[in-house]
Amino acid sequence: MLPLVLLAFTAPTACLHAAAPKKNVIFMIMDGTNSNAVTLSRWYKGSPLHLDGILTGGVRTYSAESAITDSAAAGTAMATGVKTKADYIGMDPEGRPLITVLEAAKLNGYATGIVATSPVQHATPAAFTSHAITREEFSSIGEQQVYQDIDVVLGGGSSWLAPKKKNHPQDDGMLKTDEVTRKDGEDLKKPLRGAGYAYVDTRKELLLEPSAGKLWGAFASEDLSYDLDRSELKPDEPTLREMTRTAISHLSKEKKGFFLMIEGSKVDWAAHQHDPVGMISEILSFDRAVGEALSFAKKDGNTMVVAVTDHGNSGLTIGNTDLDGSYKHQSVSRFIDPLKKARLTVEGAASLLEGKDAKDALDAYGLDSQSCRWSPSKKELKAQMTSSLSQKAGLGFTTHGHTGEDVFLYAFGPGKPSGLHENTDLPGIMADFLGFSLGTYRSWYADGRDSLEKQGYEVTLKTGTANPEMVAKKGKTILRFPENKNYYMSNNDKIPLKSVTVFNGKTFYIHLDSM
Amino acid sequence: MLPLVLLAFTAPTACLHAAAPKKNVIFMIMDGTNSNAVTLSRWYKGSPLHLDGILTGGVRTYSAESAITDSAAAGTAMATGVKTKADYIGMDPEGRPLITVLEAAKLNGYATGIVATSPVQHATPAAFTSHAITREEFSSIGEQQVYQDIDVVLGGGSSWLAPKKKNHPQDDGMLKTDEVTRKDGEDLKKPLRGAGYAYVDTRKELLLEPSAGKLWGAFASEDLSYDLDRSELKPDEPTLREMTRTAISHLSKEKKGFFLMIEGSKVDWAAHQHDPVGMISEILSFDRAVGEALSFAKKDGNTMVVAVTDHGNSGLTIGNTDLDGSYKHQSVSRFIDPLKKARLTVEGAASLLEGKDAKDALDAYGLDSQSCRWSPSKKELKAQMTSSLSQKAGLGFTTHGHTGEDVFLYAFGPGKPSGLHENTDLPGIMADFLGFSLGTYRSWYADGRDSLEKQGYEVTLKTGTANPEMVAKKGKTILRFPENKNYYMSNNDKIPLKSVTVFNGKTFYIHLDSM
Repeated sequence: MLPLVLLAFTAPTACLHAAAPKKNVIFMIMDGTNSNAVTLSRWYKGSPLHLDGILTGGVRTYSAESAITDSAAAGTAMATGVKTKADYIGMDPEGRPLITVLEAAKLNGYATGIVATSPVQHATPAAFTSHAITREEFSSIGEQQVYQDIDVVLGGGSSWLAPKKKNHPQDDGMLKTDEVTRKDGEDLKKPLRGAGYAYVDTRKELLLEPSAGKLWGAFASEDLSYDLDRSELKPDEPTLREMTRTAISHLSKEKKGFFLMIEGSKVDWAAHQHDPVGMISEILSFDRAVGEALSFAKKDGNTMVVAVTDHGNSGLTIGNTDLDGSYKHQSVSRFIDPLKKARLTVEGAASLLEGKDAKDALDAYGLDSQSCRWSPSKKELKAQMTSSLSQKAGLGFTTHGHTGEDVFLYAFGPGKPSGLHENTDLPGIMADFLGFSLGTYRSWYADGRDSLEKQGYEVTLKTGTANPEMVAKKGKTILRFPENKNYYMSNNDKIPLKSVTVFNGKTFYIHLDSM
Repeated sequence: MLPLVLLAFTAPTACLHAAAPKKNVIFMIMDGTNSNAVTLSRWYKGSPLHLDGILTGGVRTYSAESAITDSAAAGTAMATGVKTKADYIGMDPEGRPLITVLEAAKLNGYATGIVATSPVQHATPAAFTSHAITREEFSSIGEQQVYQDIDVVLGGGSSWLAPKKKNHPQDDGMLKTDEVTRKDGEDLKKPLRGAGYAYVDTRKELLLEPSAGKLWGAFASEDLSYDLDRSELKPDEPTLREMTRTAISHLSKEKKGFFLMIEGSKVDWAAHQHDPVGMISEILSFDRAVGEALSFAKKDGNTMVVAVTDHGNSGLTIGNTDLDGSYKHQSVSRFIDPLKKARLTVEGAASLLEGKDAKDALDAYGLDSQSCRWSPSKKELKAQMTSSLSQKAGLGFTTHGHTGEDVFLYAFGPGKPSGLHENTDLPGIMADFLGFSLGTYRSWYADGRDSLEKQGYEVTLKTGTANPEMVAKKGKTILRFPENKNYYMSNNDKIPLKSVTVFNGKTFYIHLDSM
């Protein structure tokens, strides 16, 4: 026994000399992807993916209400550890807000960030950074994100940071101007500036940005372009890889470490449209971002990288009914060559239609003019184009919606998950690695009215306005809790809260301990 | 350094006292399955699968000629470590036989076995135990298997062990009797008896069989029934789990350990037919066999279990175009309840049609008589039935053929594979665990004519007969090498060979070192 005893006495001594290392988590989500789409992307690329090197298991994706999840419920599951209903963002099935792993990381002293190619207000990034009863509430979601004190936010969605106006023709022939984004009239770039954010909206600005301090980059009014289309159609936008690199560079300056969520948002969008070129474009773009994250993680040694898709979409298969009798004799190029002829995604190609005939669009999508025999609406033409290309490429689809299968789990670094997991397992595994427990935050949010009434306040909910608030009165004290903000007003003083106040349409939820 | 040195000196001493442990590999293949089918089966079962506990990665399935493999090329890849052409069984792309991991295990002193629910001559079990230029050569494949000295063979395919005769009406109205299976006229049960096999053909006999000695069980003339149909339609057949248990029980008596290949063959057959009930039946049957294997492996501690599918099939998805707009609100029971109404698979239900109207068949498949409006052929009725049920169950399909995606890898035990692998990696990993290298067998088979001519023989290939053979003459010595057998005749003496002689239609391949 002597040797073991000696070892046991010497090992801790060495540990005492080491400083507690920084720990980081990079959680990467390619939205709406299936195994066939990843395999097809690898063939298209012609060499292994970064993802290939870190496959460790699988994930069950179903939601609290459906065998087939949407991105809101899946995002919430992976952000909070709780399965919820479709469309719910950071809310449990009863509509109560749940602390997300990003919020908890922030409360535990970690830097935080989100990166997406969709509007950052879209379901997946929203589920990590906000709480809403429906994913459509971009206005509320965007406001909460601004007040969440997130260190780095990069993606699309600038429309939702300030009111965007649009003219509508009226019955009387006059134009009426409506606010089509922020009906509350707030310009959220003001509080961003007040909180010390650098704000950028082009690739050039992003790449010139000093690697420190809070950063908000909004490179499109809504979503960023498909990666394949970028150089031709949107050269001012950064790639997902560039946003990933910048985010890591900013966040890794922080002392305790960071939690960063990155979404390759538009695999899903292309899948809904049955555009294999768009799917491949976004999977390969995502994979390059994975390569960037892995490059950092390998050097760093104390970074967990987890990559998943949130659910299947479209039922894409390599092989379709045309190949029923011949599938086993189909070379790789038989599938890939028709796809390589497309210079742009169907969305990019269709954008060339404005004011022109279909030839340019068909050409950009690798199709000749005989592929579509008549001149339909843009939507119909796109459907014809994707259908024609998929037939040429031997690909099948079962639905324009999501699908319910288990998906691959990719992970790297210390503490990484492996085997088959519920999507709800993932945030807990990340929290454990970062040294906190998500379970301790289950009662973080309380019903504001109940709580304040117990303290002797008279509480009124001012709803039905663009800026709902909860008002509590006791003697001469008047407290006002505006929804979506991380402070309350005590008479004329602005008092910070540790979390944003959430109004789910019925109840105001606040974090009491910070009062 | 002292403690480590002490440890280094003491550890080997302990090892010297331990006997070399037996090592076993159980390689389990569920043919033609995708992720959606496994997920759907779990929902149908209502609780976790045995597979769920051992998910470790993924497998690339493509063949040497196609992005979408067939079972022959996939089986050959997983048996030999070499990607090959469609239809090739245990042959490289040039048609040269390759030693399989099962054959190499046998040559290294391990007991060997195969279990399947198809005929054992079918592509997957064939690829581990024989060599043929096309998977259709059940006659040759079956003969090689009989001469392979495999310890346990359990499955279907008794038709191919002896000539099966069938009457054909002639133009002149007379009946002609043809051999429809073994055109060589050989009754292979004789050499089986000669080699000491116990031969069983019912479940009852199988379960009564003493757990030792060579065993051949053929429980159906071709394939065994679907698991769901068995108790009603084929109660004399064993389940895959029962065959697995018996095989393990026999093989684990051997001193050095064993290599056992088990195939749940008919997930694939059901997928080709778009029968979700049949797919679920066979996945759950396979999973019970996995449970049996894991139960042994966990007790044993030195058994590697690997489970995979060889390729996707049918593009089944949970979700289809009917659910394009509502997928996120579909309860599990919405998919499962219609499937639970089926008492039999579509194959089992259609077998009730003989001489009756369609009502019984529709009823057995959980459909009412309005589901199929007219009375078509049996084949058309089956297609209508599966289409109707899949629509009710919200399921989609893209093809009646295979698909090209990466599939899940399941593994348990010491040395188990994890991460993303080529299907060709798997036999090498198993061989490494068992302590031999497949690479050393690459030149095992030689062109018999070339080799014998170099030794001064005059060589003739007697082909174009039901029993081709290679004849070599030198002086008074005449050597005869019959195809598919593990011996040659030297004048009138039967001389054993270490491997069966393989004729690929052009060349006789023999193993020279055993001459």
